[in-house]
Amino acid sequence: VTRATVDRERVVVIGAGFGGLAAARALKGAPFDVVVVDANNFHTFQPLLYQVATAGLDDDDIAYPARGIFRRQHNVGVRMARVTAVDLAERTVHLSRGEPLRYDVLVLAAGAVTATYGVEGVEQYAFGLKSLDDALALRAHIVERFEEAAIEPEIIDDGALTVVVCGGGPTGVELSGALGELFQKVLARDFRDVDVRRARVVLVEAADRLLGTFTPRSSERARTTLERRGVEVVVGVGVEKLDATSVQLSDGRRIPAHTVIWAAGVQASSLANVLGAETTRGGRLLVEADLSLPGHPEVFAVGDIAASPGPDGQLLPQVAQVAIQGGRHVARQLVRRRAGQSTEPFRYRDKGSMATIGRRDAVTELPNGWRFSGTIGWLAWLGLHLVYLIGFRNRANVLVNWAWNYLTYDRGSRILAESDRERIAGG
Amino acid sequence: VTRATVDRERVVVIGAGFGGLAAARALKGAPFDVVVVDANNFHTFQPLLYQVATAGLDDDDIAYPARGIFRRQHNVGVRMARVTAVDLAERTVHLSRGEPLRYDVLVLAAGAVTATYGVEGVEQYAFGLKSLDDALALRAHIVERFEEAAIEPEIIDDGALTVVVCGGGPTGVELSGALGELFQKVLARDFRDVDVRRARVVLVEAADRLLGTFTPRSSERARTTLERRGVEVVVGVGVEKLDATSVQLSDGRRIPAHTVIWAAGVQASSLANVLGAETTRGGRLLVEADLSLPGHPEVFAVGDIAASPGPDGQLLPQVAQVAIQGGRHVARQLVRRRAGQSTEPFRYRDKGSMATIGRRDAVTELPNGWRFSGTIGWLAWLGLHLVYLIGFRNRANVLVNWAWNYLTYDRGSRILAESDRERIAGG
Repeated sequence: VTRATVDRERVVVIGAGFGGLAAARALKGAPFDVVVVDANNFHTFQPLLYQVATAGLDDDDIAYPARGIFRRQHNVGVRMARVTAVDLAERTVHLSRGEPLRYDVLVLAAGAVTATYGVEGVEQYAFGLKSLDDALALRAHIVERFEEAAIEPEIIDDGALTVVVCGGGPTGVELSGALGELFQKVLARDFRDVDVRRARVVLVEAADRLLGTFTPRSSERARTTLERRGVEVVVGVGVEKLDATSVQLSDGRRIPAHTVIWAAGVQASSLANVLGAETTRGGRLLVEADLSLPGHPEVFAVGDIAASPGPDGQLLPQVAQVAIQGGRHVARQLVRRRAGQSTEPFRYRDKGSMATIGRRDAVTELPNGWRFSGTIGWLAWLGLHLVYLIGFRNRANVLVNWAWNYLTYDRGSRILAESDRERIAGG
Repeated sequence: VTRATVDRERVVVIGAGFGGLAAARALKGAPFDVVVVDANNFHTFQPLLYQVATAGLDDDDIAYPARGIFRRQHNVGVRMARVTAVDLAERTVHLSRGEPLRYDVLVLAAGAVTATYGVEGVEQYAFGLKSLDDALALRAHIVERFEEAAIEPEIIDDGALTVVVCGGGPTGVELSGALGELFQKVLARDFRDVDVRRARVVLVEAADRLLGTFTPRSSERARTTLERRGVEVVVGVGVEKLDATSVQLSDGRRIPAHTVIWAAGVQASSLANVLGAETTRGGRLLVEADLSLPGHPEVFAVGDIAASPGPDGQLLPQVAQVAIQGGRHVARQLVRRRAGQSTEPFRYRDKGSMATIGRRDAVTELPNGWRFSGTIGWLAWLGLHLVYLIGFRNRANVLVNWAWNYLTYDRGSRILAESDRERIAGG
């Protein structure tokens, strides 16, 4: 924001996730001064959070400093602060530190958080998987349970080595597969003094199949692959409540489990509510066809926080591609407006869906009807993620190394400091 | 400890540092059951802590899970717990969790901690650099100061971007050089909105030259190189006291500084004191020539916790090589005793000293009188550290990657989560 002149408009982007970054990057060279605001100083590559949680990758493999991303883009500044309020009338964003930011254009890209749906115990006892902190806390918790079981094997009966994953969408499926492998391939070798065969991963999905947005054939494929890899899959059963050491299912079963992961859904960032604008049931902001806020053409919402209607009238899914394309769309509209043109409606191009089920196995569905699974599906998944990661890291070396780590599990990411334990115990 | 029989003796090793690991590894195949106890579940490669603190490496590059190290050595078990007491008479180690451990042989390798020498303010305000937590806290603190300065530039006058490093030994020299580079090569590009030229690194040493254990020529070389790289070097001046935002020197100067690192010395782990055995002024355990405790031939002390006399009657330095060689020596003595032989005195083989002064510059002194500096000294330093790291990681890939990261600084290790800030604020 160093070169602000009367001619340049100031764009404040809230959130350094996929949507916010895409908008800021697409404004490269355009006559706008952009400020990206985020509570963290880095972008989190959320699709790979489950790998950090399962010790396949380390935190800095999927986190990249926001300032590093914009090093060569001189019209973007970064501010590390929380947004405390947005004054739409005054066109001002209030922050947890520093002066409020005045804007000409505001891009709301604050993302989503875990939705508990009011299920008893989720807030207190379950782990989410929406942030790097979530992933690191989960990893430390799981490793700590194994260290405890090495000292007091009787706690295994109580569920110390049982992980229940609630939610059979892509996150739940990927996480379950990775957990099964972590237990069998890594921890079983580390913990010779623990009967790791007794460690359980249970994946619970309320609907009648996994991966509800995929074809039934992919759902079946995911289920059989997970089961072959030792994951217990329970479908058509809800979670009624949970406490520190067990999960109560709607069919009356009670599963002793010291670790519960809540991957059953998300809701829009609370920022959507503080705006006083209209939201959906999931807290998402209702937007016009061009992604602007009704009555506020200078405010746009993109990604998980926005309720953008797709071609079939359904809301677009809360996935990275919608955020990225939405961010770029908004940048294009700003440029059009400066040129005196009217804005266009946002048109989402579905690039397909994919979910890994574990090492060397994934299901991939393209919009043209093509389906891949097994090793080819996994390679497609890998290639896609590498392409998107490379956008942030720009270094083939990291990608090779990352693929290597992922294939071999030969990495030290399961370290657990005494201070981690204290933090868990305290929290 | 699964195959304990009447024939096998149980060796309890306290500490998974260089000394403890060397002892346990050297007992491979010997008729001993070994238990390594450490509060963390990993080994920390301490000589590279300063690189984690300065964002050159990430934590898991220098931390390796203890269980991973002993995966293929079946006579070693690992227990993650703190030692609360040692009962020499009952030959029992009491732990923070789990049953007490009985031993036939005890190896004390608990290392050292930062010594404050009673200087006012060090305990409360200075950062140490003895653990991974220290390094990560320091890194988060420094990056946070820059984020704050981006929002409130006036705090730079107050010392927000000034780091004072107390202690001009190898740690202080290496850290100062790396900090200077972090500021000028990395953060200056990240923080276009901060006048990073005003960031200062001040290295303070009470003696009249840096690197007191090296030759005066190496000391001079270190000083000129650091100064050329922007580090202010102050020698012959002590630190009188410090608070949250300044350092008071013995010559009357007061340096405004929001970050103070205490690298002025270490003292033996408090475990040495709880034993009730005789210690030196620095808290190190007095030992016999074979490294056993006087009156306790079944107890050995190695590394930083031990006061082992060198050939010249001086105590051996508290460096990795002394610990590694000490650990191996103890393992050999245990095998000798089992064979009915007497123990031998510990003979330390000095392999030389080295300190990096920054990228592509280091001073290396070999015991045969050879001296290297500049790029050759740095390559020697690099080679040596790679050899020792490879012992733990066994993977050329990591080393190449690591060297690459180090050369290019192209790595995302300067991430700062909101939770880090809270932890700093809370602590």
